[in-house]
Amino acid sequence: MSTRAAGEFTFIDLFLSHFPRARVPVGPGDDCAVLAPSKGAQCITTDAVVEDVHFTRAWFSPEDIGHKALAVNLSDLASMGAVPRWFVCALALPRDFPRRDLSGIARGMSALAREHNITLVGGNFTSARELSITLTAAGELLPGTAPITRAGGRPGDVLYVSGTLGDARLGLQQLQAGLRRSAAILRQKRPLPRMTLGRLAARFASAGLDLSDGLAQDLGHLCTASRVGAELELERLPLSRAVRASLGSEGALAGGEDYELLLAVPPERTSAFERACLRGEESVTRIGRLTPGVPGHIRDASGRSLRLPAGFDHFRGGRRIDRSGREG
Amino acid sequence: MSTRAAGEFTFIDLFLSHFPRARVPVGPGDDCAVLAPSKGAQCITTDAVVEDVHFTRAWFSPEDIGHKALAVNLSDLASMGAVPRWFVCALALPRDFPRRDLSGIARGMSALAREHNITLVGGNFTSARELSITLTAAGELLPGTAPITRAGGRPGDVLYVSGTLGDARLGLQQLQAGLRRSAAILRQKRPLPRMTLGRLAARFASAGLDLSDGLAQDLGHLCTASRVGAELELERLPLSRAVRASLGSEGALAGGEDYELLLAVPPERTSAFERACLRGEESVTRIGRLTPGVPGHIRDASGRSLRLPAGFDHFRGGRRIDRSGREG
Repeated sequence: MSTRAAGEFTFIDLFLSHFPRARVPVGPGDDCAVLAPSKGAQCITTDAVVEDVHFTRAWFSPEDIGHKALAVNLSDLASMGAVPRWFVCALALPRDFPRRDLSGIARGMSALAREHNITLVGGNFTSARELSITLTAAGELLPGTAPITRAGGRPGDVLYVSGTLGDARLGLQQLQAGLRRSAAILRQKRPLPRMTLGRLAARFASAGLDLSDGLAQDLGHLCTASRVGAELELERLPLSRAVRASLGSEGALAGGEDYELLLAVPPERTSAFERACLRGEESVTRIGRLTPGVPGHIRDASGRSLRLPAGFDHFRGGRRIDRSGREG
Repeated sequence: MSTRAAGEFTFIDLFLSHFPRARVPVGPGDDCAVLAPSKGAQCITTDAVVEDVHFTRAWFSPEDIGHKALAVNLSDLASMGAVPRWFVCALALPRDFPRRDLSGIARGMSALAREHNITLVGGNFTSARELSITLTAAGELLPGTAPITRAGGRPGDVLYVSGTLGDARLGLQQLQAGLRRSAAILRQKRPLPRMTLGRLAARFASAGLDLSDGLAQDLGHLCTASRVGAELELERLPLSRAVRASLGSEGALAGGEDYELLLAVPPERTSAFERACLRGEESVTRIGRLTPGVPGHIRDASGRSLRLPAGFDHFRGGRRIDRSGREG
């Protein structure tokens, strides 16, 4: 932890007390953490959650916030097929931030960290007007596995998506409408990174990413990076009953914060991939395929161009959550 | 970069365009950066600069802000004796943030990155109420060198400090008083991480850290971690003429944001260390020694207890810069 005056020490100690001691040459408390050289290639991601953008303190418990801050970073590691190793946590806290809420954030983060065997090795505290948490997380690729990137897709590869789509978006709408508990709200507050599926998929997938901006937009990114088009079978999109009833497949396409994995698998490997998912009890659904079409262009099964609903975009007035519950 | 909608792509592309393309297996643009395994042990630090805490947009140019955001992280690598390798950059930007200011931040950061041969491998954009930049930086220890930690000091070790103390604090006071240009203001805006000295010191020092909270407080941290006391020769503190005239040694002790290195060197290595500094044109000053006294207790040369002026502490009402120029 690199800011270290008396008052902050108390905050730092309190935060750290919720995490197991890192078994590294030098852990939190010095100017840097010192880590032994990594054996495999390292995957590094950094992602932030910001008050009133990714959560509100009115609707999210401190534990939810801590969970979400780590989950969105783990999801990036999952999408590359990496095994989680370590993370550092930079907290920006309003001046009056309650100590018990800091403990709550640490508890939510620590529980998820334990579950996925990732170690907190350092961090930083600073004051700020609004609460934000910026994590940098590192994972390692198992020997002999290549990372799953966005650029490896080829025409003919079959598209799969994990879990169900649109729930987190529905959860946000329900929160805005005054609801406080539902399965969809839980998906919004407590995204579950698909770590095991990511590692499994590294043996089969040609390309992939995690869905943070909505399927339509994220598939667009994969297609652009891979220089291919795509054909989606909309009626195959995996939707929960609640999402089907309220958002429909169009709404689920625009999802946002699903944190499911989108994977492209070459046709000769699909049987083996599906068998491995079945054995691993990983739920995946075949939703279409990559095509030689215009790069980034997505059609439905009847060949019609899909008008892509706008996904999550902070700068274009995306779905920023404000205190009044409006989407900004 | 892990948020990637259309509007943001433009921002991301603009930011990245100021940096050389990272020569790594996977660079910015995918869910994670992928890096080859490190050869030596890795040093990892994360540090943030926040608007109106570490800078104001009125007094700092975008280039200054970009420089400072990277400099404070490099300084942590320097203090461990590490060679800079890579960093990731998480930007939180107010909605109306001007594109030319984003370019300015990138330019200031990129110039310092080039100077110290550290590569931007990824990052993240999010919207926020106030501008903040959170970096995570990694360095590598050269084969055969141990990191310089806070905990290795022994009674009798000689204390050295690099450069001069108190200038950044004086610079802040001058900014608050309406001055806009001075050597001290430059130190406040453009801290220079002591990378070469850190690497050199790794061959000699038993302990060390970089001065971000002021010598008194940071020496206290070193002493506490090393379980030793310290004796300072106040008249030896290296002060610029301006600091001597305005703050004096008491004020310089409370410094803050000096980003100089404090090093403890065992007595049998001091001659060799001083010779190496002379050859390397690294300015260091002997300012005292570690003692077997009460851990963390600091005295002056006549044996009097030094009442430690409070250092930089956000949570206890430290020297937060607000828009009116008041210290908060």
